[in-house]
Amino acid sequence: MSDALIVIGRDGVITRADDSDRNSVDHFRRAGRLLELSPSQYLVPGLIDTHIHAPQWPQMGTALDLPLEKWLFEYTFKLEARYSDAEFARRVYDDLVTTLLANGTTTGVYYGSIHLPATKILAQVCLDKGQRALIGRVAMDDPKQCPDNYRDGSAAIAIDETREFIRFVRSMRGNEVRLIEPVITPRFIPACTDELLRGLGKLTGETGCAVQTHCSESDWEHAYVLERMGKSDATAIRDFGLMNRRTVLAHGCHTTVSDRALIRNQGAAISHCPLSNALGSNAVLPVKSCLEEGVHVCLGTDIAGGLRASMFDAVAMAATVSKLLEDGVDATKAADSRGRAGSGISCVTAFYLATTAGGVALDLPIGLLKPGYRFDALLIDTAVPDTNLRLYDFDKSVDILQKIIWNTERQNIKKVWVNGRLVKG
Amino acid sequence: MSDALIVIGRDGVITRADDSDRNSVDHFRRAGRLLELSPSQYLVPGLIDTHIHAPQWPQMGTALDLPLEKWLFEYTFKLEARYSDAEFARRVYDDLVTTLLANGTTTGVYYGSIHLPATKILAQVCLDKGQRALIGRVAMDDPKQCPDNYRDGSAAIAIDETREFIRFVRSMRGNEVRLIEPVITPRFIPACTDELLRGLGKLTGETGCAVQTHCSESDWEHAYVLERMGKSDATAIRDFGLMNRRTVLAHGCHTTVSDRALIRNQGAAISHCPLSNALGSNAVLPVKSCLEEGVHVCLGTDIAGGLRASMFDAVAMAATVSKLLEDGVDATKAADSRGRAGSGISCVTAFYLATTAGGVALDLPIGLLKPGYRFDALLIDTAVPDTNLRLYDFDKSVDILQKIIWNTERQNIKKVWVNGRLVKG
Repeated sequence: MSDALIVIGRDGVITRADDSDRNSVDHFRRAGRLLELSPSQYLVPGLIDTHIHAPQWPQMGTALDLPLEKWLFEYTFKLEARYSDAEFARRVYDDLVTTLLANGTTTGVYYGSIHLPATKILAQVCLDKGQRALIGRVAMDDPKQCPDNYRDGSAAIAIDETREFIRFVRSMRGNEVRLIEPVITPRFIPACTDELLRGLGKLTGETGCAVQTHCSESDWEHAYVLERMGKSDATAIRDFGLMNRRTVLAHGCHTTVSDRALIRNQGAAISHCPLSNALGSNAVLPVKSCLEEGVHVCLGTDIAGGLRASMFDAVAMAATVSKLLEDGVDATKAADSRGRAGSGISCVTAFYLATTAGGVALDLPIGLLKPGYRFDALLIDTAVPDTNLRLYDFDKSVDILQKIIWNTERQNIKKVWVNGRLVKG
Repeated sequence: MSDALIVIGRDGVITRADDSDRNSVDHFRRAGRLLELSPSQYLVPGLIDTHIHAPQWPQMGTALDLPLEKWLFEYTFKLEARYSDAEFARRVYDDLVTTLLANGTTTGVYYGSIHLPATKILAQVCLDKGQRALIGRVAMDDPKQCPDNYRDGSAAIAIDETREFIRFVRSMRGNEVRLIEPVITPRFIPACTDELLRGLGKLTGETGCAVQTHCSESDWEHAYVLERMGKSDATAIRDFGLMNRRTVLAHGCHTTVSDRALIRNQGAAISHCPLSNALGSNAVLPVKSCLEEGVHVCLGTDIAGGLRASMFDAVAMAATVSKLLEDGVDATKAADSRGRAGSGISCVTAFYLATTAGGVALDLPIGLLKPGYRFDALLIDTAVPDTNLRLYDFDKSVDILQKIIWNTERQNIKKVWVNGRLVKG
């Protein structure tokens, strides 16, 4: 829309979004409540990052050339264990949430660590800074897959602390609109005992909470669950009572068509994390197929298995890897057997995954700028000096959108609103 | 090196690069010629972008979801034809070169357009702004593959203008150190008649110029040349006299092992353009194999077939797509037949491609900070507010390098030098 008036209520809900008319514009201008965009500025929905490991922020950019086990045990678990230090947690989470808001992430779906106090701090930081967030205290108790110094003492402890975290978030002062929500978060099946998974499934039923976990991320994880459970990862998650309308399954690269039929039937979603998957998942999620099958797909950075903070980068990567899946990668194979025809998605579809589809996946009225939706939005300025985004007078609308998708940097994001509140700029 | 002193002569050549000693440091400080880095600052070699289509800069970010033919005829050729307007050329090239320097590209290997005046302007802009550059006036004369309004009138005209461009660059005032070099530039075999290719080959022999062209970029191009010439793209380029020690062959995705043996034997180089290839080349160049075969490989953005200006992004993409080649992309195939084992390169190897290997490919003393090399370098500041690069006190040296590779933005690049001259900051 090129000349629109968007009206936002005091509760952050969009009440009008259509062609502007002179009378209304004058009315809001006289009332001192009109923000007018300059010709170089564009308004887009806020970005929804559906998979973030908050405690991994300090290692972002490192160690992804290591095999998964080394990455987990030499970097990730050691780092996550530090969050027993609340002061460290406060410092990192403050920086992380500030950074993500500055990059246009208006909604974050976060893994915390196993530490209840640190995860409460993350919730408080998001609330204070005004980022919409779904946050989980991580549960992981299996001694065979978790290190001694970073593991829940028992399934019962993990379940109790998860319950306490849910209570805490739901009663946070200032969170009456539920800007922050708790998420039940079994790390992934390999890290959890059956007892823990069953207990968290029961808690999901009792509390009606959203759930997040990993599902069929890599060959290893997919095969591990098949071997241990005698059924697929998706099926096992469902059978433990962990798959509901608001479950976010990270990755899903190795899900089968029947796994995805199950996910679709439950109304759950797959969080596609293209950069992280390229580096460590042994395959590319067939997003186009998922969409055609009717599965909810949303997008995530997977900080820090993904190495970039920006959801604009995740959008660009989603389009890029989909083309590699379509065409294939190995030129020594014949073109018609190299890839998987019809798998490519455009950058505009990828942008939809990061916005509208994110709202659908989380069952929240976000990701669109239309009446009834919350005003989570970014003001993109395409004329900021010392950035790489450049428009020309012969660019058509579709060109401008594509340029914004591929080349927006955080410096171009001049203002960010969440629930109608200005949180950057 | 953590505490080094680098001494640079007035001619831009590094005369010393080793552990700093107090006496020397004091000497340079007293003379007012010492630049000391703060603890958050790091010095790295300048980045060498070996494949840039300068006139395509205004369309960067757009239209890459179109099939190649539409991309060429509806966007690219129309845009390149505009450079008959010298004022337009000056405005775009001024912005492009400024932007690339700001992003740390100290050496650019450029395609211009078919327009002699515009391409001279590009050379002058690079010289004035102090960017090391190899620049070619594009030759393309085949009516079957080029539009009527954007094509050389004849092979003879293209050859004459190429000769004139070489003369111009070699006699530019202020270019006595050959900061700017001409490159003989047949667009690619499909766009050129045999007569033109033969003539440019002859001119290469006469002038000793570097050469750039595309080689086996996509299934289509690879097959087209095989069909028309009855031999591979690389062989045809060699047979036309266009493959020498300083030939840069863009892409090479579909070169065979024997093509690459020929390229290696000529001492030519393949410019790997990972993002562009992911979107439009139908395969990933097996960089690891190329290196093992002894082929010179360097790195390029392929602006605007590549959609990002930053060579740091090209480095990250080179590592990323190599892992997709290694592991494969289609999860419905068995893991052991999905990809091409042993194809992954680390981000550090990818960074080497953008620096040291670029110098080797171009046969220029750049890409390393050691005596005898030109001082082309970047000062990276890891503590710039409002950026996504973040170090922690527990980061090891290897972590810091990887963080710089994955998360440097142009705001972190505080200073850029080319040939000892400060060109940014």
